[in-house]
Amino acid sequence: MTTKPPSGTRDFLPDDIRRREYVIGIIRDVFERYGFEPLETPAFENIETLLGKYGEEGNKLIFKILRRGEHERSGEADLALRYDLTVPLARVVAQYQNELPKFFKRYQIQPVWRADRPARGRFREFYQCDIDAIGSRSVVVDAELLASVSDALVRLGFRDFVLRLNHRRALTALLQCAGVPADRHADALIAIDKLDKIGVAGVERELAARGIDAAASKSCLECFSGIAGDEAAADALLQRMRQFVASDDGGRSAVDELADIVKLVEATPAAGRVRIDPSLARGLSYYTGAIMEIAVPDLAGSLGGGGRYDNLIGMFLGREVPATGFSLGLERLIVVMTERGMFPPAIGRGAADVMVAVWSDDARPDALTLASELRRANLRVDVYPETGRLGRQFQYAASRNLPFVALVGEDERARGEVAVKDLRSGEQTSVARAEAAVFIAARLATP
Amino acid sequence: MTTKPPSGTRDFLPDDIRRREYVIGIIRDVFERYGFEPLETPAFENIETLLGKYGEEGNKLIFKILRRGEHERSGEADLALRYDLTVPLARVVAQYQNELPKFFKRYQIQPVWRADRPARGRFREFYQCDIDAIGSRSVVVDAELLASVSDALVRLGFRDFVLRLNHRRALTALLQCAGVPADRHADALIAIDKLDKIGVAGVERELAARGIDAAASKSCLECFSGIAGDEAAADALLQRMRQFVASDDGGRSAVDELADIVKLVEATPAAGRVRIDPSLARGLSYYTGAIMEIAVPDLAGSLGGGGRYDNLIGMFLGREVPATGFSLGLERLIVVMTERGMFPPAIGRGAADVMVAVWSDDARPDALTLASELRRANLRVDVYPETGRLGRQFQYAASRNLPFVALVGEDERARGEVAVKDLRSGEQTSVARAEAAVFIAARLATP
Repeated sequence: MTTKPPSGTRDFLPDDIRRREYVIGIIRDVFERYGFEPLETPAFENIETLLGKYGEEGNKLIFKILRRGEHERSGEADLALRYDLTVPLARVVAQYQNELPKFFKRYQIQPVWRADRPARGRFREFYQCDIDAIGSRSVVVDAELLASVSDALVRLGFRDFVLRLNHRRALTALLQCAGVPADRHADALIAIDKLDKIGVAGVERELAARGIDAAASKSCLECFSGIAGDEAAADALLQRMRQFVASDDGGRSAVDELADIVKLVEATPAAGRVRIDPSLARGLSYYTGAIMEIAVPDLAGSLGGGGRYDNLIGMFLGREVPATGFSLGLERLIVVMTERGMFPPAIGRGAADVMVAVWSDDARPDALTLASELRRANLRVDVYPETGRLGRQFQYAASRNLPFVALVGEDERARGEVAVKDLRSGEQTSVARAEAAVFIAARLATP
Repeated sequence: MTTKPPSGTRDFLPDDIRRREYVIGIIRDVFERYGFEPLETPAFENIETLLGKYGEEGNKLIFKILRRGEHERSGEADLALRYDLTVPLARVVAQYQNELPKFFKRYQIQPVWRADRPARGRFREFYQCDIDAIGSRSVVVDAELLASVSDALVRLGFRDFVLRLNHRRALTALLQCAGVPADRHADALIAIDKLDKIGVAGVERELAARGIDAAASKSCLECFSGIAGDEAAADALLQRMRQFVASDDGGRSAVDELADIVKLVEATPAAGRVRIDPSLARGLSYYTGAIMEIAVPDLAGSLGGGGRYDNLIGMFLGREVPATGFSLGLERLIVVMTERGMFPPAIGRGAADVMVAVWSDDARPDALTLASELRRANLRVDVYPETGRLGRQFQYAASRNLPFVALVGEDERARGEVAVKDLRSGEQTSVARAEAAVFIAARLATP
C-alpha cells in the first residue's frame, strides 16, 4: 500500500507550514486592518448548492461524496467538496442576511478541491485566499481592495509589482466601437490578450482565424495597440480610451469610473502601482465593473486578480447584490517567495531555539525545570527525551540545526549555573542560571 | 433550495472565528514552546489508507468520495475524508522516515469528518487538536505532554482542572489480581468507570449483570474503591496500587512508571495538577502505557485526553514505533470558554477599531488617506463606502458596535485636524491629524 498522499494533494511538513503560516499571517493582518472580517464555511456543501454553478467543465471537476448507510450502494452523491469560496459566500449572504452588516467585507482563506489532472503547480487540494466586499456599488470599495492587496504584497516583500486595471463595460464598448459583433467579443479578446506576446501582426492573423472580419480586426488593433503596449500615464490612457468609446454611453461611464478609482488609489499606499490596461479581460465571464490583476515582471501569469461582479452573490436570494472581490494566489505567492528567498531567516530556525540535554536519570526533573524556565522567557525548548551519552545528544541537536544546547551538569548545579553551547560557533559558556534565557535570546537575535 | 450549511456542519461567522483563532493561537504558541512542530495532511486520503483502521462502526462513519469521470456512474469510491489525525500521522511517519527527526514531535490542528448522527455538540465536521511525540519510550515525553497541556489550559484561563493519570498495564494487572478473566476486562471497566456516579452497590449490580462472578466482583470493588474515590496524595495511592499488583511483574513496572511520571511532572508548571486515578480507562483500546485525561469539576466528560500507544504509528511500516499523544478537545474548550465568559473583551471588539466617515464625493481621497494613516498605526479601519447623510453613517457605525468614527470636515481640514467621535460615550473631540491614531489607540486601551 502506498504511503504517499493522494494524487494532486500534499503533506505539509513543519518547514512548509512555517512558510505558509508566515504568508497567511501577514495577509490576515493586512485584511483585518482594512476592516475585512474572517469567515469559514464547511469543507462540503449539499451537492445541489454547487452543481450547475461552474459550467459543464466545472461540474466534472467537483469531488462528490457518497450517501452514507444503506444508500451507499446506490452510488448516489448528496454532498460535494467546496470548489471555490464564492458560491459558499453567496449561500452565507442569503442564509444570514438579517445578521450580517449592510456592507459585509469578509476574507476567507481555506482549501478548495478540484479534480483537475494534477500537473506541476496544479493541485487537487489548494488554498484560496479571497476578499470580497458585499453591498456597495461605490468605487471606494474597489479602490480599497487595490490598496489592501498592495499593502499585503509590500508587507510580504514584493517591490516590483503593478496592479493592472480595466473595466468590463469599457472593454465591451471598445470592442463595440471597433465593430466587433457582441457574439464575437470573447473570441476577439482571446486574440487581443496575446498582444504583448505575438505583436500586432500575430494578433491580426489570430483575429482572422477566429472569423473576425478584416475591417473590425483593423479598427480593433488600432484601438488596443493605440492604447496599450505603452507606458503612458493613466491620465493619457484614460483620455485615449474615452475618445475611442465616445459614442457609447456605457463606455463613457465605465471610463469615468476607472478615472475615479485611479484618483482614489492615488490617495492610498498603492499610489503609483496602478496601470490602466485596456486589454485586461480576466476571462470576462461574470465581471460587471472594474477588473484587476497583479502583474510581476519576469513572471508569467498573475499573483492574483479580481473585480466587480454584481450579478453573482445574489444567486440564492433571487436579487442583485453588488459585490467586488479579489483572490490572492496564495500557492503561487509561496512558490515565488521560496524561489526568490523572500522568507526571513527566523522562519527557517527549525523546531526549537534550544535543546536541554539530560545528564543522568537523576537529573531529569531538573532538566524539565530548566526547560520551563527557558520557556517562560518565550524560548522554544526541546528536551532530549532519553538519558544517553551526552555526545550523542549534542550530535542530535546539531543534526536538527538547533542553535543551542543547555545542560546542568554536576559542576554547574553546584555553582547555580547552566552550560550553554552555541552549536553554530561551537563555543560553550557557563552562565548564571537566572540569566540563561536572556543570554540565549540575545545570542539568537545576533546571528 | 436551502441555504443552511449541510447537516452536522457549521458556518463560522466573524465572531466565531475570532474566538476560535484566539484559542488556536494560544495552543499553538504553547506547543511550539515545547518543541512540537506543525504538520498538515490532505483533507482526503486514498480510501484503503482509512478502511479497516477504525473498526466496523468507524468504517460506516467514513465519508467516501466517488471516483471521477467515466467511473462516476460505477458508484465506486477511491478517496475518503480524514477521520482522525492519527492514521494520517502514521502514514506521514512511514512516507518521510528518512526526513523526519528520530524523535518527531508534531502538533496538528485540522478538521476531521465523521458521518455520525448530528446532535447537540456532536458535529460531522469538527476540529481535532493533537500533539504526538514519536520515537521514544521515555517517560520524560509523557511528562512533557502533561506539562504542555497544563500550560495551554492555564494560558486559556482555566484554573480548576486536574490531570487524571493511570497506566494501561497497571489497570490490566489490577483486574488480573482481582480475579477478572482477561476476556472480561473490557466489561468490568465499563462498570468500574461509573464508580463516581452510581457508587459501590451500583457497580456491584452492573458487574453481576455483565456476567462477572461474585468473588471477582467483590475483590474488584475492594481494589478500586479502596484506591480511588479518595483525595489522598499520589504517593499513598501509588503505594496502595503497588500492594494490589505485587504479584504481577507488568503491574509493578507500570506503577513504577507512573511514580516516575508524577515525579517528573512535579518539576514542571503542571506540578500539583496530576491525580492518580486507577479507574481511568479511556476506552482501553489501543493504549499501551500511561493514559491521561483532563477533568474539570462541574463538567461531565473531559476537555481532552491521551496516552502512550506504541503499536499504532508503525502500522504502515510493519514494525513497532513508540508514540505518546494527547488530543485537546478544541470544540469543547470553545463551548466551555464561551459559557464561562473566558474570552478577553478585545475578542469581541468587532470588525474595526474606527470607521472613517465620508463628508462628500470630493472628500473621498482624503478619507482614504486618513484611513491609511490610522492603519499605519496598527488600527483596524473601515471606510464608509458611500457618500450619504453623515447621520446615517454614524448610525451604521453604532449598529455595528464600532467604538470610534473619524471624520475630516471642511473646518477640520482647514485646521489640520480630525473630528473623532467615541460612540461609547458620545463625546466628540477635535485632535491634530498627526495625533489622531495615538488618541484613538489610547482611548481603546482604556475602556
